[in-house]
Amino acid sequence: MRYELFYWPGIPGRGEFVRLALEAAGADYVDVGNDERAGGVAAVEALLEDAAATRPAFAPPVLRAGRTLVGQVAAILQFLGPRLGLVAKDAGDALWTHQLQLTIADLVAESHDVHHPVGIGSYYEDQKAEARRRAEEFRTQRIPKFLGHFERVLARNPKGPAHLVGARLSYADLSLFHAVEGLRYAFPKAVARIGDDIPHVLALAEAVKERPDIAAYLRSDRRLPFNEQDIFRRYPELDG
Amino acid sequence: MRYELFYWPGIPGRGEFVRLALEAAGADYVDVGNDERAGGVAAVEALLEDAAATRPAFAPPVLRAGRTLVGQVAAILQFLGPRLGLVAKDAGDALWTHQLQLTIADLVAESHDVHHPVGIGSYYEDQKAEARRRAEEFRTQRIPKFLGHFERVLARNPKGPAHLVGARLSYADLSLFHAVEGLRYAFPKAVARIGDDIPHVLALAEAVKERPDIAAYLRSDRRLPFNEQDIFRRYPELDG
Repeated sequence: MRYELFYWPGIPGRGEFVRLALEAAGADYVDVGNDERAGGVAAVEALLEDAAATRPAFAPPVLRAGRTLVGQVAAILQFLGPRLGLVAKDAGDALWTHQLQLTIADLVAESHDVHHPVGIGSYYEDQKAEARRRAEEFRTQRIPKFLGHFERVLARNPKGPAHLVGARLSYADLSLFHAVEGLRYAFPKAVARIGDDIPHVLALAEAVKERPDIAAYLRSDRRLPFNEQDIFRRYPELDG
Repeated sequence: MRYELFYWPGIPGRGEFVRLALEAAGADYVDVGNDERAGGVAAVEALLEDAAATRPAFAPPVLRAGRTLVGQVAAILQFLGPRLGLVAKDAGDALWTHQLQLTIADLVAESHDVHHPVGIGSYYEDQKAEARRRAEEFRTQRIPKFLGHFERVLARNPKGPAHLVGARLSYADLSLFHAVEGLRYAFPKAVARIGDDIPHVLALAEAVKERPDIAAYLRSDRRLPFNEQDIFRRYPELDG
């Protein structure tokens, strides 16, 4: 099965959560938006605007797997999980993994809203004052709340703190790694400040980064660097 | 099976999406936060703060079904769907239903952020100017984008526009009804303005409202009225 990922080019974005799952599993996939031979951004736009689609996509990322099209990161990962061996077979464990993924999605959405608090469609430069206000709460309340939650989940995992669910890697571990990387990129001081409170979260992020499959991916040109068009943006004025 | 819904009392909130599914299916459930005999808000807080939980909840709503605890509205509905007969048996249809639910969740989150653009934890009164800015984009761009998407989904459903997925009621239909009700409560003028563009969405909302099970629920005291502590708030200054 060759998977096709439809996502905007040039940013890790929400597509990255899907890429990490595909990479960790060694899956065959094409990152359409970043691959001109596969159609590039025009192919992404054509998919989104396909007037013949009986199940139109709301926004990228969208994954195509044979005749299946699926959008929404958490739904894509839930679809891929069993196919890539990145989720437990037990239904209760799979549901818990998905629930964690949805909480990561909430964190990702808030991470974006910090620099676009009053208008998704307008420039950061036109809402810097509002972003500073929102960033203060995000740094002091929301990052500790989210990462503290995942710390608790890891600490209480009966199979040990190496993974969010059970004793094996899941797509939620990979996504938490990327969220932590993103937060460290955008809010290095804020994350450093709470480092002592989230040892298991940081250890998980490090362990994911050092997996041979992920390490090879991170060194490759398939891994796009964080940048200021993305969800996680390094605006030092927002890091307090 | 008696289901227990743990959610804050006094508001429909995100709990309402779960209540509607339980009500439409005639399920036996207790709305713990609103039921003093069941423990009320203290029981909700105790669940959230349960230091013995190996799978701690991030935020309500949380559903308890026997020994299963599940949080995150979309995950709760995915869990309940097959048990309540509110989702198709076909895996592809079920995944599509879930994907639609996740897009409704995005709409709900944005509906909340409109009146709290710079601080979830601070008062609306302290961010009214910012809320006005955000509301303009929400009214003119985001509501049309979201409801236009669901209109397209209905119009393109090969089984007809009466339901989002196939020819039967799903939890996504119920959730779309509540989202439309909420938007009409909070932004009556903005929704009225695009009414001609979303006939299928409005017809679906009306049909859900008129179902005997839902109509009886809406007349009951179990249905809490919208109010200004909730996600959807009627602040006329934000409706343009």
